[in-house]
Amino acid sequence: MSASPLTDFRRLCVHTITTKPWSIEEACDRYAASGVRGITVWRQWLEGRDPAVVGQRLRAAGLQVVSVARGGFFPAPDAAGLQAAIDDNRRAIDEAAGLEAPVLVLVCGAEPSQPLSRSREQIADGISAVLDHAKACGVKLGIEPLHPMYADTRSAINTLAQANDMCRQLGDPQIGVVVDVYHLWWDPNLEAEIRRCGQMDRLFAFHVCDWRTPTEDFLTDRGLMGEGCIDVPRIRGWVEATGFDGFIEVEIFSDRYWAMDQQPFLDKIKQAYLKHT
Amino acid sequence: MSASPLTDFRRLCVHTITTKPWSIEEACDRYAASGVRGITVWRQWLEGRDPAVVGQRLRAAGLQVVSVARGGFFPAPDAAGLQAAIDDNRRAIDEAAGLEAPVLVLVCGAEPSQPLSRSREQIADGISAVLDHAKACGVKLGIEPLHPMYADTRSAINTLAQANDMCRQLGDPQIGVVVDVYHLWWDPNLEAEIRRCGQMDRLFAFHVCDWRTPTEDFLTDRGLMGEGCIDVPRIRGWVEATGFDGFIEVEIFSDRYWAMDQQPFLDKIKQAYLKHT
Repeated sequence: MSASPLTDFRRLCVHTITTKPWSIEEACDRYAASGVRGITVWRQWLEGRDPAVVGQRLRAAGLQVVSVARGGFFPAPDAAGLQAAIDDNRRAIDEAAGLEAPVLVLVCGAEPSQPLSRSREQIADGISAVLDHAKACGVKLGIEPLHPMYADTRSAINTLAQANDMCRQLGDPQIGVVVDVYHLWWDPNLEAEIRRCGQMDRLFAFHVCDWRTPTEDFLTDRGLMGEGCIDVPRIRGWVEATGFDGFIEVEIFSDRYWAMDQQPFLDKIKQAYLKHT
Repeated sequence: MSASPLTDFRRLCVHTITTKPWSIEEACDRYAASGVRGITVWRQWLEGRDPAVVGQRLRAAGLQVVSVARGGFFPAPDAAGLQAAIDDNRRAIDEAAGLEAPVLVLVCGAEPSQPLSRSREQIADGISAVLDHAKACGVKLGIEPLHPMYADTRSAINTLAQANDMCRQLGDPQIGVVVDVYHLWWDPNLEAEIRRCGQMDRLFAFHVCDWRTPTEDFLTDRGLMGEGCIDVPRIRGWVEATGFDGFIEVEIFSDRYWAMDQQPFLDKIKQAYLKHT
């Protein structure tokens, strides 16, 4: 059932937040020198910079810009908050367009003071509100379902079934799904929903890391592939069975790894990519 | 949609772990004096005691023994581990019978070194292996689906749909489900699955607490009803729409509350029960 082993780094993408201590310039140089081929840029890394200039630099170094992370956070308790989120997502789309990134990842958000059903409506409305701008800019919108432990504030979209349903509801090929093993590995319907996502042609991105036992922090204790209980090769097999042959994106938030020298950490990522992904 | 307000404590049950600093004897006296009517006994509270004697004492104080927590933890990487779990569940059933508790709550377990699908098979096999003993003892087995953040070690059953499916698969009215708002509140299928559980006549127990924002610990940072983002009255409404009129069990693991004098905490529980449940 597992995918065929990965034998080179042609599909390896790293998120700038994975090597958090590095600026975008240092990440660019180090990734390129290490044979990483793709980069997903978190918006904080663009602060004070012109996205178009950053995009040129990344491409000149031989890196492909895979996505921008992250838009979303649509729910809010009042109209001003809803509008602020829409405005911010328009800016995120502009930044993605400047970088020539094909996809903006949406961490959809949730507002704990209101029912999940209301947050879910606001997410659908928010995506609809920015869709024309995304189309005009040539940026796809990737809904990333987040683990249910984030349902209070980070995302009211917590299963791949929900993300697929929202894609179907919104009905536009510009809107698809980001599959992250960390958020979805536990779901008994995962294989079937990955298949459905592929059939809808909406599988835009694939993120990997691992779930450590015990996990000690809700946000910053993700593991390197092979360090935890997620069968990443098996899930990659399901993803690739849909025809997906895009980048495999390493997205790890880890206080432990951020505390170490990032170059040996990047080497570890490459090893784990070949051995446990 | 919400249930009618609770106006008295006739259906209030407290888990001994909620007031962790109290022994079973102190919990018995304090609960009874405070007008709590039901008690769910965690097995640690029985250590060094005869369950039958404890049961008599609880009933003499006017408390109804609602459940024993907890059996389960069936998955294991080898045959010896699987057998040890079955043996331990037989003892848990004996303790529940001694207490004259009608239900043993099953926290089903998960083994991080093996696929979730294998842990799920071992759970079904384990429950089947102890079913005859449970029937002979007159103890029902309540499968409690646990939040997906516990899928690595505590439970491979993470949605009410899975628990309902397992009840249907095992096909015996002795086996049912425990609905805990903390584990299930985020699930977009919750209302429908509660309805299905009721139609199958398998809704054995209902646990309440709240989800705090931010939650700071994976285990011991649960909130009192009203302190978080769970719409407990709404979920209670769904549960009661099935015909359920059993105890409403307050199960809170909280380092904050365990650190305070437990009598004022119990008073807070009673207030939160009337106001936010």
